[in-house]
Amino acid sequence: MATHCVGLIGATGETGGSILQGLIQDGSFEIIALARPESLSKPANVALKDKGIQVRALDLEGSEQAIVAALKDIDILISAIAGSQQLVQIPLAKAAKVAGIKRFVPCAFATPMPVGVHQSRDQKEEIFNLTKRLHLPYTIIDVGWWHQFSFPRLPSGKIDYVVGFPNETVPGDGNIPTALTDLRDVGKYVARVIKDDRTLNKTVFVYNELWTQNRIHDLLEKLSGEKIPRKYTPAEKYEQKVDDVIAELEANPKDPVLRVKKVYNQYCLSVGIRGENTPEYAQYLGYLDGKQLYPDVKFTPYEDYLQEVVDGRAVGIYDEMRPLLFEALAEGD
Amino acid sequence: MATHCVGLIGATGETGGSILQGLIQDGSFEIIALARPESLSKPANVALKDKGIQVRALDLEGSEQAIVAALKDIDILISAIAGSQQLVQIPLAKAAKVAGIKRFVPCAFATPMPVGVHQSRDQKEEIFNLTKRLHLPYTIIDVGWWHQFSFPRLPSGKIDYVVGFPNETVPGDGNIPTALTDLRDVGKYVARVIKDDRTLNKTVFVYNELWTQNRIHDLLEKLSGEKIPRKYTPAEKYEQKVDDVIAELEANPKDPVLRVKKVYNQYCLSVGIRGENTPEYAQYLGYLDGKQLYPDVKFTPYEDYLQEVVDGRAVGIYDEMRPLLFEALAEGD
Repeated sequence: MATHCVGLIGATGETGGSILQGLIQDGSFEIIALARPESLSKPANVALKDKGIQVRALDLEGSEQAIVAALKDIDILISAIAGSQQLVQIPLAKAAKVAGIKRFVPCAFATPMPVGVHQSRDQKEEIFNLTKRLHLPYTIIDVGWWHQFSFPRLPSGKIDYVVGFPNETVPGDGNIPTALTDLRDVGKYVARVIKDDRTLNKTVFVYNELWTQNRIHDLLEKLSGEKIPRKYTPAEKYEQKVDDVIAELEANPKDPVLRVKKVYNQYCLSVGIRGENTPEYAQYLGYLDGKQLYPDVKFTPYEDYLQEVVDGRAVGIYDEMRPLLFEALAEGD
Repeated sequence: MATHCVGLIGATGETGGSILQGLIQDGSFEIIALARPESLSKPANVALKDKGIQVRALDLEGSEQAIVAALKDIDILISAIAGSQQLVQIPLAKAAKVAGIKRFVPCAFATPMPVGVHQSRDQKEEIFNLTKRLHLPYTIIDVGWWHQFSFPRLPSGKIDYVVGFPNETVPGDGNIPTALTDLRDVGKYVARVIKDDRTLNKTVFVYNELWTQNRIHDLLEKLSGEKIPRKYTPAEKYEQKVDDVIAELEANPKDPVLRVKKVYNQYCLSVGIRGENTPEYAQYLGYLDGKQLYPDVKFTPYEDYLQEVVDGRAVGIYDEMRPLLFEALAEGD
């Protein structure tokens, strides 16, 4: 098989970092990390270069011609940018068409959702729609809910060092299944998907295991020996929170705490109440099922991950965001 | 196989009429035509009743409870409503969910298109998105471009009696393939699609044959013995027309002539220039291909249809709209 040259945007981020590892471990790709010109000298990009990764400047605020030039020789273009930055992919997709990119992987890398229930998903859909207007070859990859954001605090506080969403709230009755993927496994799946002819011009759902919030709580109690309070929250409460936050955002549209609250509660409704982060709903939306495509991928079992957490061996993610998340979601919010 | 009860909205329209015939000929469905209360006594609905079709009142401006009651006993709900009426399907879809409809077929029945290039398509997409937010089982069916709208006038005027789009303009170089379906065949495909488990929660593209505009002109010249002027129009001209019409519509948003011009020129770009009415583009968008699903459907070959036209045996469609179309599209517009 011919070597594919992959251009990766966001290689120093959480999702992009996992993808970079997956591509490296796969071994069959030439990899070019694409970074903003002003970021080339940042430690994270210097570290990439030290690892032997080619890092190339890409200025998405530059001319189309310059963006096209930055995409030279790239076959597969993967965009793993921050949730709040989705629309910078507009010039990227247009340039990718001109550059003759053979497969564009726009930023998805989250849970399957319909249009109209989640702010940042809807922005991603704008990019998917633009991609299709351009007739640009694509693959959309969703990865479910991360292990790293899946579990509650312990009363002792001993796992606060890695807790992502610091609250005790359980959506609905806690028995809705949700597809979990270890962030570190995301790249393994992506490496498989992007060289697979079956996934060209398709939407693909990859994930490790299905868990319910009650089973997650049960497992964490078993592994930690602590009793975790469970506050079951009905759909109406989340809907009310979303409505309230939307109203508050009108006065303070850029307030980061409010934005996190909105996104979090929209996710609770989609994932925890309506059960949209499942293979069944993904299939209903037209996704290919990663379990059927890649039954042989060796992933981290959820139980192993949670043992790491309890043992103090887990690695935190979005560290710089954690204070914001604690502020936004503490006190049962 | 169990008999399915099909509720059909729009049974007295062009698409709905073909669907009704297809369902009757199939013979395996119980059929309920759903009509506005004030239309029940109209000749077209009386004629349905005289044929033994059950006609039931459905008031989409009524309460949800009343709409749900009107959907009683219906398994499959097909909506074939006018292009300008798409958003009345909002209460319909919500009630269909409550009523437990097993398969909702929202109004599509046109050419495959991406989001953001065609006004009435985008309204249809709003209904598709709502359907998916509701987790309502669905099948979306597109049928390509009708034979009945596919051919130009003859210089003699002898086929003006059935011409749909009265202009001599050929989009681009005239060599882009387009999927054509005889309106009378639409219902045959729909009858197959809606009882097929493979098409549940899928989008399906059915069509008869692929033709290019040049081949259509060639065939019509051969069958008629007349020479047809061909005015090739580049993409930029259509784009300019769309922009101009959008600007004009701002002053007169309800002007029917302007609306037809906009829809027509948007179709020319999609179908005639970008080649979106093809099995390849439909597959790219995620459609199942009707030719692969139903290779045995007996349809009207395009050549036979055009012979009917030249022989004076064809039946006109949208008769009441023809003066409007002639006004909107005459003089090369």
